[in-house]
Amino acid sequence: MAQYSAELDGVFVALADQTRRDVIRRLGRGPTSVGDLAREFPMTLPSFMKHVRTLETNGLIHTVKLGRVRTCVLNRDRLALIDDWLAEQRRLWEERTDRLERLVTDPQETQT
Amino acid sequence: MAQYSAELDGVFVALADQTRRDVIRRLGRGPTSVGDLAREFPMTLPSFMKHVRTLETNGLIHTVKLGRVRTCVLNRDRLALIDDWLAEQRRLWEERTDRLERLVTDPQETQT
Repeated sequence: MAQYSAELDGVFVALADQTRRDVIRRLGRGPTSVGDLAREFPMTLPSFMKHVRTLETNGLIHTVKLGRVRTCVLNRDRLALIDDWLAEQRRLWEERTDRLERLVTDPQETQT
Repeated sequence: MAQYSAELDGVFVALADQTRRDVIRRLGRGPTSVGDLAREFPMTLPSFMKHVRTLETNGLIHTVKLGRVRTCVLNRDRLALIDDWLAEQRRLWEERTDRLERLVTDPQETQT
């Protein structure tokens, strides 16, 4: 549970930045070399690499080195952590709606 | 677009903390007074209020004062921002899968 919590923290932190969200969107179209990616973002290479490392540290991407070229690959599974969390919230809201409905249709039941 | 981006940043920052996620989950069961909420979290009231303010500033909850009691209410719509962002990523992945499929089933087409 503590690990799941820390992982969720990391995923949310990684996504709280437009550049990093843009990198994720770009990698959704397929793996891309760090060089090609960096050229699409208007910042210095060291600044860009910091974003890449934040994404990698938090498991949203991984990088593979082939010869002299390092390629970034999206880890779609990691985004599923957020899907799961949102689904859990929705389940709680639905339970609440069900309780409210029972309160309206059968007030006796809710007093027991 | 810039505003949407800043709003997404804020929502992700607000969710990157277990206490704040727990508050959201708790409020999914219904509006709750700040006092009742605070009692459920093992920290000082000032620390807890900081989390409440972060959630409120980023639009995930709002608070209503009735007499001397301040009540927190969840803004479910705000979480839909993340749903939308995730749905957009999924759409990009599907487009990519479609392109790859066309490449396999009709290599000529992809060369035009």
